[in-house]
Amino acid sequence: MITGLSAFPLTPIAGDGSVDEKAFIGLVERLVTAGVDWIAPLGSTGSYAYLRPDERARVTRLAVEHAAGIPVMVGIGATRTREVLKLAEDAQTAGASALLLAPVSYQPLTADDVFGLYEDVTREVSVPVVVYDNPGTTHFVFTDELYQAVGRLPRIASIKIPGAASARVGELRELLPAHVTLGVSGDAFGAAGLIAGCDGWYTAVGGTLPTPALTITRAVQAGDHATALTESDRLKPLWDLFARHGGSIRVLATIAEHLALVTAPCLPTPLRGLTDAARTEVIEILERLNLAK
Amino acid sequence: MITGLSAFPLTPIAGDGSVDEKAFIGLVERLVTAGVDWIAPLGSTGSYAYLRPDERARVTRLAVEHAAGIPVMVGIGATRTREVLKLAEDAQTAGASALLLAPVSYQPLTADDVFGLYEDVTREVSVPVVVYDNPGTTHFVFTDELYQAVGRLPRIASIKIPGAASARVGELRELLPAHVTLGVSGDAFGAAGLIAGCDGWYTAVGGTLPTPALTITRAVQAGDHATALTESDRLKPLWDLFARHGGSIRVLATIAEHLALVTAPCLPTPLRGLTDAARTEVIEILERLNLAK
Repeated sequence: MITGLSAFPLTPIAGDGSVDEKAFIGLVERLVTAGVDWIAPLGSTGSYAYLRPDERARVTRLAVEHAAGIPVMVGIGATRTREVLKLAEDAQTAGASALLLAPVSYQPLTADDVFGLYEDVTREVSVPVVVYDNPGTTHFVFTDELYQAVGRLPRIASIKIPGAASARVGELRELLPAHVTLGVSGDAFGAAGLIAGCDGWYTAVGGTLPTPALTITRAVQAGDHATALTESDRLKPLWDLFARHGGSIRVLATIAEHLALVTAPCLPTPLRGLTDAARTEVIEILERLNLAK
Repeated sequence: MITGLSAFPLTPIAGDGSVDEKAFIGLVERLVTAGVDWIAPLGSTGSYAYLRPDERARVTRLAVEHAAGIPVMVGIGATRTREVLKLAEDAQTAGASALLLAPVSYQPLTADDVFGLYEDVTREVSVPVVVYDNPGTTHFVFTDELYQAVGRLPRIASIKIPGAASARVGELRELLPAHVTLGVSGDAFGAAGLIAGCDGWYTAVGGTLPTPALTITRAVQAGDHATALTESDRLKPLWDLFARHGGSIRVLATIAEHLALVTAPCLPTPLRGLTDAARTEVIEILERLNLAK
């Protein structure tokens, strides 16, 4: 069962365009020290869509080697089924304990296309697969019928649902076999999603700042909803920054750079870091929230 | 100057997932026979977003070899600037006369990201670059300010604008240097766009059915707007099919399969062909319009 806190680290890019392996290992070790439940490299935050297959295999190997036994879940998304199958094989060879698959699109996908993708992939793999529903990057919207159909495929172990969908966790659970867990994403919805009954939190903020994300997760797991909501409310300035910058990746890159976990700029171009004014604001908020450590 | 009819052929995929080179050459030769102005492999219709760099280089070489001197424009889009630069180099080495670049996204892009992409690419290349504005696949919307800024970069030769924007061709032209041409895309808007003053038509339908697309283009070029509009109106059932199937690629694949130009299924998975019922409808319309030849 895939439950608890799955933390998505950045994949820092060095000045020459290669993966900054030393910094990446540092990010993984930070998650080990904090005690997350899953380490999830090569999610959206881990820039999987910007890396070559050989780089993705190497990042997976590094994560597994430095995870100290914490299971590693790896993003295998690509526009084409052929490439997804190859990435799945590479990830399994590198020691991944689970695979995360989003319906990455260029031409708009139909529900039949997406079902076929999950059918083709789950037929070939031997480890659990997490369905990655992220319309902000894939531009694909799952229907309940598709959740249900995909949820019945072998090896489907969990669905990473968008934040807003966590309000419907009860309804969604009715559609799925009992062994398929539901995990909330969209960091602003983490506490609410867990309290609403999600089994886990797929968290980008937790990949760079694991401590507050673990505070929220462990509080809900202990039945202490008040502490979880208080911590999530305290972090609201961070959620607001994510919303204002079209997602969390640019803000988290700035935070990782400020904490000297990575070297600036750490995002793959054409993605640019934040402007100087936005960076100043991020750092001010970070310090005000006592997260600058 | 990039003007006239730029025809975008499919890149047919064989049963084993490789490019069906024989069928692709046949599609290129069909465009040569028809007498298009530009041959544009590896556009959205040519599935560039689904092919490996080595396949894209090979497809470009084949197109140039079989183009009989007609200039070849090649799609070099990718999520990452590093890959775009490599694809640009490969395309130039293979003999491309122009490069077509869309701001392909995974993380939502900012205007600064997109300007930076065009700046980084135009700095490195030696052939003309066509800006490919296709929000249906890139999910990026160009502003007039960005058109203007990108249009001033060296080697920018043309902008492929969405169909609806062709109503504003006069306004857009004011923003751009005189040597930057405007080409309409969205096949339903071809005739109207050319009549409104676009210098060219970037056409998907013309990549598979060049004759009616040339009828429209040559009529407008000769000042015979009535003939162009009549032919475009006659093809309306085709435009309606494109709209109903989320774009033209699945319908054009069905047409190419029916005409035995390619072997079914010819699209890269996860993209599926049309259902049997939709295929029957496409073929009926094709025959009714006298295009089944």
